[in-house]
Amino acid sequence: MLLGHDEFGRRLNKIRAKMATSEIPALLISDNANKYYLTGRVYAGYVYVPIEGPVIFFIRRPVELEGDGVVYIRKPEEIAESIGLNTPEAIGLELDVLSYSTALRLKNIFPQSELKNASPVMRRARAVKTAEEIEMIRKSGVKHVHVYSRIPHLYQAGMTDMELQVEIERVSRLEGCLGQFRISGDSMELYMGNVLVGENADAPSPYDFAMGGQGLDPSLPVGACGEEIKPGNTVMVDMNGNYDGYMTDMTRVYALGELPELAIKAHQCSIDIHHELCDMMHPGTEARALYSRAEDIVKAHGLLPYYMGHRQHAGFIGHGVGIEINELPVIAPRSRDIIAEGNVIALEPKFVIPHVGAVGIENTYAVMADNVECLTPAPEEIQYFDV
Amino acid sequence: MLLGHDEFGRRLNKIRAKMATSEIPALLISDNANKYYLTGRVYAGYVYVPIEGPVIFFIRRPVELEGDGVVYIRKPEEIAESIGLNTPEAIGLELDVLSYSTALRLKNIFPQSELKNASPVMRRARAVKTAEEIEMIRKSGVKHVHVYSRIPHLYQAGMTDMELQVEIERVSRLEGCLGQFRISGDSMELYMGNVLVGENADAPSPYDFAMGGQGLDPSLPVGACGEEIKPGNTVMVDMNGNYDGYMTDMTRVYALGELPELAIKAHQCSIDIHHELCDMMHPGTEARALYSRAEDIVKAHGLLPYYMGHRQHAGFIGHGVGIEINELPVIAPRSRDIIAEGNVIALEPKFVIPHVGAVGIENTYAVMADNVECLTPAPEEIQYFDV
Repeated sequence: MLLGHDEFGRRLNKIRAKMATSEIPALLISDNANKYYLTGRVYAGYVYVPIEGPVIFFIRRPVELEGDGVVYIRKPEEIAESIGLNTPEAIGLELDVLSYSTALRLKNIFPQSELKNASPVMRRARAVKTAEEIEMIRKSGVKHVHVYSRIPHLYQAGMTDMELQVEIERVSRLEGCLGQFRISGDSMELYMGNVLVGENADAPSPYDFAMGGQGLDPSLPVGACGEEIKPGNTVMVDMNGNYDGYMTDMTRVYALGELPELAIKAHQCSIDIHHELCDMMHPGTEARALYSRAEDIVKAHGLLPYYMGHRQHAGFIGHGVGIEINELPVIAPRSRDIIAEGNVIALEPKFVIPHVGAVGIENTYAVMADNVECLTPAPEEIQYFDV
Repeated sequence: MLLGHDEFGRRLNKIRAKMATSEIPALLISDNANKYYLTGRVYAGYVYVPIEGPVIFFIRRPVELEGDGVVYIRKPEEIAESIGLNTPEAIGLELDVLSYSTALRLKNIFPQSELKNASPVMRRARAVKTAEEIEMIRKSGVKHVHVYSRIPHLYQAGMTDMELQVEIERVSRLEGCLGQFRISGDSMELYMGNVLVGENADAPSPYDFAMGGQGLDPSLPVGACGEEIKPGNTVMVDMNGNYDGYMTDMTRVYALGELPELAIKAHQCSIDIHHELCDMMHPGTEARALYSRAEDIVKAHGLLPYYMGHRQHAGFIGHGVGIEINELPVIAPRSRDIIAEGNVIALEPKFVIPHVGAVGIENTYAVMADNVECLTPAPEEIQYFDV
């Protein structure tokens, strides 16, 4: 497949280490994000990963792929023939993402095997990025930052939130953004990101995102709602970056005209939290300690009523980023995750100020052995559109 | 919620009729597409649909929704309290879309109930649209057609497939396109649609779409690949329409410079198939009879090697459209679907001509009692870009 031999080995070893601790002797992988992780490309089919012995790539579509371990099949039941007598005692399937019907069908290929959940294995393996993965995220970040540098030039007087968003989408796509973003979890739906202006930032959303927005239509109730950008509004731009299959997450705030003191203070508080958490975010730190520290800073500034939303509050301030936009670790009050070298984490302490809008920034960071590297380096202060 | 009382009743009656024939006394609905169908909006939570008695809307997010039957919950286990002693003998869950883990968790709310699959019930109920749904699709079609009318003016000399696609995306979004498209099925991934130029149309795709394309990156191997549009190429534009939660599907072909006879002949064959199938597509017709008739026309013209792909062939020529882009009925050789009044169907008999590109059109049709209405009416012949 498309991964180099050494890189494939590194990823496989991480997965097998998690398989060993979870006592799962074999995985049958079918989720696109996990197949991409194991092969460097997406195809319709499966990856069979025994804890020892060769990995087999079962391919249904597209035609004409070649490589070691490639076996073409028409339906998953043909996998049984290739595995033959090596039926594992237990089979791990991605039970958190596979549909119930598909999971049962795949389980029936292994009638003698106990069914185990491969989702935590894959999620934990992928949470610790290789140097090659971090380099892909770094490259995505460069393009992402370049797009953001153009945002002040895209604003024109009288624009609505959606009109501005469409121009940012266009610039992103011309920069090479792939458009589609992968997100894990039932019922999560994500377009290219959101531009939230003024009071709309306070509209509660059904989705488990940091911020809300009413959206254009009740069929997709999130993000921009078509209102004109007005003086005294903040414009929060949270457009995602995906230029090579690995993502960066980044938010900046723009404004038209002067803002009240409270909004400026809350924005500075977000920046302060970033700097404070970067000092703490070393291998071994508890994710929930990061959450607590941020909340302490917010409380000390008296900003809790506005923190992570106003009418509705989000329950996390950061999340892993990689092939999907919501990976491990999760920076939340009851998270059990421990920060590790190789984690790539988006931090997004944000505030919603009534009648003004959302403030605060989001950056994507790589946790290195001795330091934290910001992969979305760009000016952090509020930028003002020319009137 | 947001549906009118009568419209809600019509949809509920359709679902309950399918519940009766499937012997499922109660459904717990959690898929966004199905919640939207039952409420006119998306929220995080569930709809409990007993075959008799009041429907209950269990809501986790967003805050502040109101309406008859609304019950706020923090976690699904709280549903048990509201249902109380009325535990159904069997509970229908959407087993074709719910993850295995989520399905088990929801099943545990009903420990005494047999588990049944609600997915076919909902899919079959939704396949027959109400007049209100058809009107929403009709309105989406008007905007969709308007966007397509602008495509010839968007082309500029030297453009790549992706540059043209980005301009179409921009015009779509400014027209009100919501961007996100709902698609059902494990591992299906869809952005706003695809522009396929020249030889790239022949690149086999992992996805179960009518056409392929290499894509910009192996992480999303479908659609435009960044190649310049050259004389003698066809440009197939298959950009989706979603302006109100209901979709239209539409394809037209453009070209730069003269095309070989074979491409022009195949395009005309596609148009002929549309007209022929519209004459047949009445309530009671077997979906597979439509597929056979189309294949007979293709064979009579000697075009089978190019039909629905060249290096890789797709196995269907049409599909239902509505809240999701891949609904029932399916127009495929072994489909058991019977055309019914209220079906909305996208037909897409297409061809890939080596070294030239893809030709053929796609329209979305509503099956009415006495006629078939085209919801994407626009010129069908190949349109030539000004050089």
